[in-house]
Amino acid sequence: MTDTVIEAAKDAENRATAPVELLVCVKCRGQSEVPADDRRPGQALYDALTGGDIPAGVRVTAVECLQNCEAGCTVALRGGDRWTYVYGNLDDAAHAPMLLDGAARYHATTDGLIPWRERPDHFKRNCVARIPPATKD
Amino acid sequence: MTDTVIEAAKDAENRATAPVELLVCVKCRGQSEVPADDRRPGQALYDALTGGDIPAGVRVTAVECLQNCEAGCTVALRGGDRWTYVYGNLDDAAHAPMLLDGAARYHATTDGLIPWRERPDHFKRNCVARIPPATKD
Repeated sequence: MTDTVIEAAKDAENRATAPVELLVCVKCRGQSEVPADDRRPGQALYDALTGGDIPAGVRVTAVECLQNCEAGCTVALRGGDRWTYVYGNLDDAAHAPMLLDGAARYHATTDGLIPWRERPDHFKRNCVARIPPATKD
Repeated sequence: MTDTVIEAAKDAENRATAPVELLVCVKCRGQSEVPADDRRPGQALYDALTGGDIPAGVRVTAVECLQNCEAGCTVALRGGDRWTYVYGNLDDAAHAPMLLDGAARYHATTDGLIPWRERPDHFKRNCVARIPPATKD
């Protein structure tokens, strides 16, 4: 292989293995009305996500308000040259294993597009928005 | 001023002036049913945005599907160390001046948070989601 080909192959591998972030809104109230000083459903989701094993290459980050409040709990996936995805209507704990599985599948892609048949059903039906990778000048 | 203070001031200025992108989904059908081969409302919005003067520091970029299809037309604002914002329910042409004004106000911020009283009313009521700036390691 030429140096150029080797460099291109390395670049592709680096993109595929670039770490991803699972951003979790810890302020989400979900569909419930909870007092402001109780543990909110978004915080409970974060606690469930970080309470066990997290897939390699995935970092779970607590954030404040992704402004999808009417369809919370809400998370976002981003990292490397991938499309960023925002997902809503998440349960405070039951969806944690699905989210970690989805984050691992997202990490396995270079562009963030999980093949449709591998995509968790919740991702198929509850995508709030997606944003393309940074534009190259 | 010490070199450190001067460097910090320069950093702050660079963040405030970092260019921003207004991403426009040109596939959006809006609330209408149009044949697939007609000019879609999203494309009409993009054409209206790029047909006149664009504020300094703002780049308008056509993108395909931000997956907010039920509440299109849809755009996103991003750039530098700012929060990324996604807005929906945009009209195919009438909202172009408001969007360019909003993009200029967004460009004037370091963090993407346009002061509430300066924020276009449409931005207040039609924010689909927002995503924080990249996490610093």
